[in-house]
Amino acid sequence: MSEQRGLLIVVSGPAGSGKGTVLSELLRDGGYRYSVSATTRAPRQGEVDGVNYHFLSREAFEARIAGKEMLEYTEYCGNYYGTPRKEAEEVLASGQNLLLEIEVEGAANVKREYPEAVSIMLLPPSFAVQEKRLRGRGTETEEKIRERLLRAREEILHADEYDYVIYNHDGKSAEAVEDIRAIVRAERAALRRNPDVVKNYFA
Amino acid sequence: MSEQRGLLIVVSGPAGSGKGTVLSELLRDGGYRYSVSATTRAPRQGEVDGVNYHFLSREAFEARIAGKEMLEYTEYCGNYYGTPRKEAEEVLASGQNLLLEIEVEGAANVKREYPEAVSIMLLPPSFAVQEKRLRGRGTETEEKIRERLLRAREEILHADEYDYVIYNHDGKSAEAVEDIRAIVRAERAALRRNPDVVKNYFA
Repeated sequence: MSEQRGLLIVVSGPAGSGKGTVLSELLRDGGYRYSVSATTRAPRQGEVDGVNYHFLSREAFEARIAGKEMLEYTEYCGNYYGTPRKEAEEVLASGQNLLLEIEVEGAANVKREYPEAVSIMLLPPSFAVQEKRLRGRGTETEEKIRERLLRAREEILHADEYDYVIYNHDGKSAEAVEDIRAIVRAERAALRRNPDVVKNYFA
Repeated sequence: MSEQRGLLIVVSGPAGSGKGTVLSELLRDGGYRYSVSATTRAPRQGEVDGVNYHFLSREAFEARIAGKEMLEYTEYCGNYYGTPRKEAEEVLASGQNLLLEIEVEGAANVKREYPEAVSIMLLPPSFAVQEKRLRGRGTETEEKIRERLLRAREEILHADEYDYVIYNHDGKSAEAVEDIRAIVRAERAALRRNPDVVKNYFA
């Protein structure tokens, strides 16, 4: 089915979900591409334009919003974050699956614009484990940890707006990666994505 | 998620789809059970009651229909075929997935009674290949082949009533088995099967 358009896969995961590891595993599969987001925030040490982000001025970003060149965008802590539409469209047209790692609001925006997108929420097994994982890092102040937990809680309250919810049980990602592979495989076989199945069969 | 109820998986596949091989592969996985159907037709040489079928008299079968003891049933060539409900319920309650191999009409009946069932149509890659496979066996008369193709054609016209359509491309079953495994894994992660995901997360 190489003539099929790629799937747009939106993955959200709060702090402690191991989202980064899961997505880099998937990218190693082939058949998946990752969308480089655009942002107006300043590059951090070592970040490369076009690799970590497309770094844009506020004016340039707003011009792209106005020109409908952003598939989705959101403002967070005074900066814009968004997904350039052209890049995304190219990947999908080539038949590759496009992974978008975005937070809850962006995910909802994508689903509005692309109802055929598959949205997946990746969670630690429970809030108790999540808290333990965040504290276990030992690299952040109590205040920072509380802030991250609060934000995580808000995100998780939206988990039931996603198509799928998967869990990173052991923090090692293998099961969650397998879940996403299965979801993509199943979605490709779903009748709602293949309305011409009977016609094609007799062609 | 061992506390989860098993999935009721309905698989239909016309002649030449390789359904038998696919299902026996799946049963070797563990986690799947196969439902032994009941029938009023006479046992064929070598068939064992309770293994190949539960062989019932017409009166006994009709008493079970009246008592709502059949999850689904259909009449074909003057004989009843059906799935005993009690056995099916026990498997599902134990958390194991129940495989039902039934034809189009039975599948529609199951979906009416169990909307949460997952229905899968397994097909050869095309009608042309299907015909070739049936003829390639070289064991049947032309009349028998035509009859089987006609029946297959009728079944396939209903493919778009299924949740998923998968293909046995090479006749070797491995890809189709992988598809079913993926569908089951994805369905278990689907939000519609886990409505309490947020509540459970904070429990």
